[in-house]
Amino acid sequence: MNWSACFAQRTALMKSGALRELMKVTSRPEVISFAGGLPAADLFPVAQIKSALSAVLAAWGGQALQYSETPGLPELRDWIAGRFSLARLRVARENVLITTGAQQALDLVGRILLQKGDRVIVENPTYLALLSAWRPTGVEFLPVACDAHGIQAEKCKPLMKLKPKALYCVPNFQNPKGATLTLSRRKKLVALARQHSMAIIEDNPYSELRYSGSALPNLLELDARNGASSEYESHVIYAGTFSKVLMPGLRVGWVIAARPVIEKLTLAKQAADLHTSTLSQHLALELLRRGFLEEFLPTLREQYGRRRDAMLEALEKYFPKGATWTTPEGGFFLWVTLPKRVNASQLLPAALGQRVAFVPGEEFHLNGEGKNTMRLNFTNAPPARIEEGIRKLGRLL
Amino acid sequence: MNWSACFAQRTALMKSGALRELMKVTSRPEVISFAGGLPAADLFPVAQIKSALSAVLAAWGGQALQYSETPGLPELRDWIAGRFSLARLRVARENVLITTGAQQALDLVGRILLQKGDRVIVENPTYLALLSAWRPTGVEFLPVACDAHGIQAEKCKPLMKLKPKALYCVPNFQNPKGATLTLSRRKKLVALARQHSMAIIEDNPYSELRYSGSALPNLLELDARNGASSEYESHVIYAGTFSKVLMPGLRVGWVIAARPVIEKLTLAKQAADLHTSTLSQHLALELLRRGFLEEFLPTLREQYGRRRDAMLEALEKYFPKGATWTTPEGGFFLWVTLPKRVNASQLLPAALGQRVAFVPGEEFHLNGEGKNTMRLNFTNAPPARIEEGIRKLGRLL
Repeated sequence: MNWSACFAQRTALMKSGALRELMKVTSRPEVISFAGGLPAADLFPVAQIKSALSAVLAAWGGQALQYSETPGLPELRDWIAGRFSLARLRVARENVLITTGAQQALDLVGRILLQKGDRVIVENPTYLALLSAWRPTGVEFLPVACDAHGIQAEKCKPLMKLKPKALYCVPNFQNPKGATLTLSRRKKLVALARQHSMAIIEDNPYSELRYSGSALPNLLELDARNGASSEYESHVIYAGTFSKVLMPGLRVGWVIAARPVIEKLTLAKQAADLHTSTLSQHLALELLRRGFLEEFLPTLREQYGRRRDAMLEALEKYFPKGATWTTPEGGFFLWVTLPKRVNASQLLPAALGQRVAFVPGEEFHLNGEGKNTMRLNFTNAPPARIEEGIRKLGRLL
Repeated sequence: MNWSACFAQRTALMKSGALRELMKVTSRPEVISFAGGLPAADLFPVAQIKSALSAVLAAWGGQALQYSETPGLPELRDWIAGRFSLARLRVARENVLITTGAQQALDLVGRILLQKGDRVIVENPTYLALLSAWRPTGVEFLPVACDAHGIQAEKCKPLMKLKPKALYCVPNFQNPKGATLTLSRRKKLVALARQHSMAIIEDNPYSELRYSGSALPNLLELDARNGASSEYESHVIYAGTFSKVLMPGLRVGWVIAARPVIEKLTLAKQAADLHTSTLSQHLALELLRRGFLEEFLPTLREQYGRRRDAMLEALEKYFPKGATWTTPEGGFFLWVTLPKRVNASQLLPAALGQRVAFVPGEEFHLNGEGKNTMRLNFTNAPPARIEEGIRKLGRLL
C-alpha cells in the first residue's frame, strides 16, 4: 500500500516541530531543560489527589467512569461560568464547553471558524501548536510583532483592509516571550474587533500564575463591559485550562464564548472525541470544590516566582554584555535576545553537549526572524539547577 | 457579532443527531433505555479501580498527572502491540497510537486521509458518529447494504470503478445491526483492498464481548497473513478501544496501522489535543498489568450474554408476528425489523410516554431506508428491566 499517495492534501501542512524532536533529548533526567513548558510535577500534591479520587469514586461509583455529556459535566461548567462571571459579564453554563486541554479548544475553534482564504492575525513570535492546529485549514497567518508589552496593537489597524477573520493572542505572560499586553493595547484590540467584526481568540493559560505586578482585565471582560446586552455576547472566544494551575495530565480545558459558537464547537467536539475523560473532569471538580486552587495557587506562585528570580539573577551574573531578556510578571517563560552575531540554533548542539536545553527563538517566528533569541522555561527545574544551567549557557556564550 | 456569517463552510456539514437529543430524555433514571450504547456502570469494579489508582500514584507520583508523549505511554503501546502480534503479524510499538477514545481514532483518520472529492464505502446502516467525523471533510459516502452477515462484500466490487479511497466497517457485532461479517466476506474485502489500493478502516470496539459462536480473524490479521514482508504493512487501519471492556469514561482508544500512517496520525493528534489523559492511560495500563481484563471480561460476557438472552426471549414473547430481529453473537445491540406498515419514528413518542426509549433504525441509514426498523441496546439495563421494557414496546405495537 502506497500510503503517501493516499494522504489528504492538508497533511502537507502538518509539520513536526523541531521542538518535539528536542523533547526526546530533554526528557532525560541528567539534562537541565529550559526547553519545555512543563509545570513542576514534584509540586503536585499526590496525597490530596489520591484523597480526591477516592471521594469521587465513593460519591459517583461507576458513573465516574461512564460515558458523559459532550459539553462536559454540568457542575464543572457551572463552576467555570461562576468563576468568570462579573457584574457586566454574565457567563452561563451554556457559554462553557469543556475540552480535552486548551489545545483541543484551539483546534475546535479552527475547525468551526477557518477555511482556505481566511486570514488570521497572530503574534510574532507565537505559540507553535496554534500554528499546527490551524495551518491545515489553509488559513493565511498575518504576523504582527510582539514586543515586551505584547502584540503591537497599533500595527493591526492597517491589516484590517485584508479583512482578517480572527486575531489570536496570549495576553498574559505570552508564550514564548513572557510579555504581558498593556491595558491600552487590550482596549485597542477589542475596539478593532468591534469595528471590523473580527473574532478574538484569547488564549489565557497562565493568568493565575502572576508573581509580580497587578492583574489586567481579560479581553473577554473588556469586550463584555462595553456591551449593553444582558445576554452574553462577545467577539472574544476565550480558551482556558487547568493544565497550568492543577495538572496537565488531566487534559481538562475549556472555551467560553457566545452560544452560537459553543453550539458549533459542541458538534465539532462530539465528532472529535465524544467527550473529555469523565474521571479527569470529576477529579478537577472535586479539587476545585475543596478549595484546592486557593490552597495550591499561592504555593505555585511562590515556588515559580522564586524560580523566575533565580533565572533572572543567574542571567545577570553569567550572561554576556549585550544580551537582554524580558522580565515576565508571571507564567512559564522568559525570552533572551543575544548579541546580533550569535545564532541560537547553532549554539544548541553545544548546549546539549553540556546537558542544557533551550528552544531557539527562531522556531516561534513565522518569518525567519529571531535567530539571536532563545526561549527559556523557568518552572520545571529547581533554583539550584536553574543557576547551574544558566552558568553553563553563559560560559558557552 | 454575527457569528453565523463567520463559520467555515464545513460547519454546514456538522449535524446534531436526533440520537443526541434523545439521550437527554433517556438519562432520566425512570426511563428504560434501549437507546444508548452504554456499558453497565454498575458492573465497573470500583474497589479495583480505586486500588489501581493508588498504585499508579504510589509508583509514578506527580508524573502520572504530568504532560506525556503524543503517541501515548510507551508501556501501553507495547501492551497493545503485544496483544495484536501473531506469527504472521508483527505489530511494533511504532504501529500503535493511543487516542482519546476510538472516536478520536476515526476523526484523525479522516483528517489525514480524506478530502473533498474522495469516496468512502460504508455499511448501510452504519455508525452515526463516523459520519459526523468524516462528513466535514467533504467526502462522498457510498452506502452498501449490511445484512445479518455484515456488509455485502459482493456489492462492493462494482463500486471499484468509482475508485473509493477507503472502506469503513465494524466487522464484529456491528453497530447498529449486531451483525458479524462472515469469513468469506472478510476475505473478499481484503482482496478488494489489495487489488484496488483501497484502505480499510476496521472499527472493532466489541470483539472481546462475544457471547456465543466462535471468533473470526480480524481484517488486519487477514491482510497481514497474506503479506510476505516481515515489516508490518497493511491496507487496514485498525481502531480499538478500552471503552467497552474497561470503562468509556477513561477515553482511551488506539489505532494500529503502518508506520507512515501512524506518523501522520501523530502529527494530527499533536495538533488536536497534545496527548491523551496521562492518568487515564496509567490507570488502563495498571489494570491490564494486573490481569484485570482476564478477570473482568468473563463477568462482562456472562452478564451481557444474559441480558441479550433476556431481550431475545422477551421479543419472542411480546413482539407481534411479522416482526423479526437479529441474534447478535456479541456486542451491545440487536436490530428489529417491524412489519412494513409500522413507522418506528412515529412509535417513539408513544414509547417515551411509557418511559421506554429506543433509536429508530432510519437514523442509521444514509438513504432514508429502514423506517420500520429499530436499534435496541441490551447491555445497559438488567434482565428484569429489559423484559418490562420489551413488554411495554410489544403492547404498543
